[in-house]
Amino acid sequence: MQIALDAMGGDFAPGPIVTGAVQAVQADPGLRVILVGDKSQVEPCLANAPEDLRQRLELFHCAQSIGMEESPVVALRKKPDNSISRCWQLLAEKKVDAIVSAGNTGAMVAGGLRLRRFLKNVRRPGIAAVMPTLNGACVVLDVGANVNPKSVHLYQYGVMGSIFAKHILQKPKPTIGLMNIGSEEAKGHDLARETHALFNASDFKDRFIGNIEGRDIHRGAADVVVTDGFVGNVVLKVCEGVFEFAMKTVSKELLSALSTERGLAHQTLTGLAERYDYSSHGGAPLLGIDGICIICHGSSGERAIKNALAVAARYAGSGLNQLIVQELEASPMAGNGDEE
Amino acid sequence: MQIALDAMGGDFAPGPIVTGAVQAVQADPGLRVILVGDKSQVEPCLANAPEDLRQRLELFHCAQSIGMEESPVVALRKKPDNSISRCWQLLAEKKVDAIVSAGNTGAMVAGGLRLRRFLKNVRRPGIAAVMPTLNGACVVLDVGANVNPKSVHLYQYGVMGSIFAKHILQKPKPTIGLMNIGSEEAKGHDLARETHALFNASDFKDRFIGNIEGRDIHRGAADVVVTDGFVGNVVLKVCEGVFEFAMKTVSKELLSALSTERGLAHQTLTGLAERYDYSSHGGAPLLGIDGICIICHGSSGERAIKNALAVAARYAGSGLNQLIVQELEASPMAGNGDEE
Repeated sequence: MQIALDAMGGDFAPGPIVTGAVQAVQADPGLRVILVGDKSQVEPCLANAPEDLRQRLELFHCAQSIGMEESPVVALRKKPDNSISRCWQLLAEKKVDAIVSAGNTGAMVAGGLRLRRFLKNVRRPGIAAVMPTLNGACVVLDVGANVNPKSVHLYQYGVMGSIFAKHILQKPKPTIGLMNIGSEEAKGHDLARETHALFNASDFKDRFIGNIEGRDIHRGAADVVVTDGFVGNVVLKVCEGVFEFAMKTVSKELLSALSTERGLAHQTLTGLAERYDYSSHGGAPLLGIDGICIICHGSSGERAIKNALAVAARYAGSGLNQLIVQELEASPMAGNGDEE
Repeated sequence: MQIALDAMGGDFAPGPIVTGAVQAVQADPGLRVILVGDKSQVEPCLANAPEDLRQRLELFHCAQSIGMEESPVVALRKKPDNSISRCWQLLAEKKVDAIVSAGNTGAMVAGGLRLRRFLKNVRRPGIAAVMPTLNGACVVLDVGANVNPKSVHLYQYGVMGSIFAKHILQKPKPTIGLMNIGSEEAKGHDLARETHALFNASDFKDRFIGNIEGRDIHRGAADVVVTDGFVGNVVLKVCEGVFEFAMKTVSKELLSALSTERGLAHQTLTGLAERYDYSSHGGAPLLGIDGICIICHGSSGERAIKNALAVAARYAGSGLNQLIVQELEASPMAGNGDEE
């Protein structure tokens, strides 16, 4: 398994990014990582890596990188030798099975859209985020690739999300819910109503449970939650903020209330906060791409990058994309409507 | 202070709704509540209310009520004698200072839009939800009245939200943030970009802090968070779901880890969960209406209704609406653009 890693992407790049790669190849003897970035910055980070691991850590030099706050479209045009575009190039040339970046999400998505290396019949790729619920994990998509989707895009997110939920989250018969502001069919804006109708007229009718509301996600009401990239991105980050708020508030109150078991409580809460730490979850796949593309949290540290590389290797080996192509071919809605 | 209460609105109406009204008039000797609903259902709920309180609890009979899942527009048309319309009528006739309902939110908003009793220069009312943050409370609007807003509506939500934050949340110089999916100006969809430009060209430029992301809300990055009714409604309910998830997960882990101080921990967590219980927060005002309109969570119990009536009385006495009118008159953006 060969993965290209954007060594320049993320708030703390390249240090922890490179360290994460070293840890990942150490943990998986079948893994090779190509570190894509500025040689003069990346090489020093590799200085302490054991020689046997270095053989599975290749350096692909590129002179430029895109900052987290840069405009994706402008940056991609003005900086042709940036690490994100080079990762995509390696994927397009089939030199790697997967690419991973904690860099500018917009640039990562736009880089992929430019190449248009979509899976057959896929209209627009979407970022899929796995979220914990009281009823196991669920997958929410799109969380930021497509802020102005059409209903057919959301329908395809449901199809791709179902395959992800079945084969990655191990849900035998995944249910699909449409993010909306009320349960009745006529609720929400035009996009929500059109998407609702599309699912009900499709082969996925049986697993479509209709509209779900914000509070239903963490209750585990649906295995796949379908929404546009604007709402999905806001939701993902709101979850992060509320969880952080809840844990801080609980810690403060509880640690001042307890005495003899304060240490034990602190330890338990720290463990929980780590388990649900959104920035270390190993990244979210951009589904619909021919190849595997994993987008990590900007604040990813070495653990997050190590996890993301492991996740990328797992997805690349799962045959997920082949199943998506089969499902979209079997589904009558797939090729319908206007092309973009 | 005289308030009309939709006695038929909410998942558990009319029992706990009426009980909440009894408690509210008991707590506030200056309060009179008009219970709007079906006499045959409401009267029995008043049977045990003390005689002296009964004198400040009037019954306004109406034969119909709108269910929580009914289509607002259809229901308002087919059921002219419903409790929500009767509440609005009492407000329009200036027979009450405020109205409160835990019923169908869409019908409540549509009922108000029909009458078009907006404050001067207000283009569209918006529902304002108060949220806890690590840095005091903030107000998010709109959370469900206006799912297809124009940028000028969002701008006005910023103006109205500022006045709310200053006079109700006691923030001397409230900051305004625009909900978006990244901090840079060009992020997001057209609505977000247009609204961003509108704030920067306005008298509110100094207090506009630009885009904020989902995770910033609970970190307390802005005192006023402006967004469309679809996103705001999803956010509000996601917060509820994540908080519930966090508290259940913490409780489970902690109570199994602790032993001697388990009881104390349980008590602390229960207190916290109650303090942040979204369903008992006392409701959210529909700002921009000539009068006070408070919309409560569908699952409101007696405590939530008691709180909502107290909140309604407080807002009605605060001169909030007069300040909104003044601010919109002073602001050059107020009357601009096409009228609907």
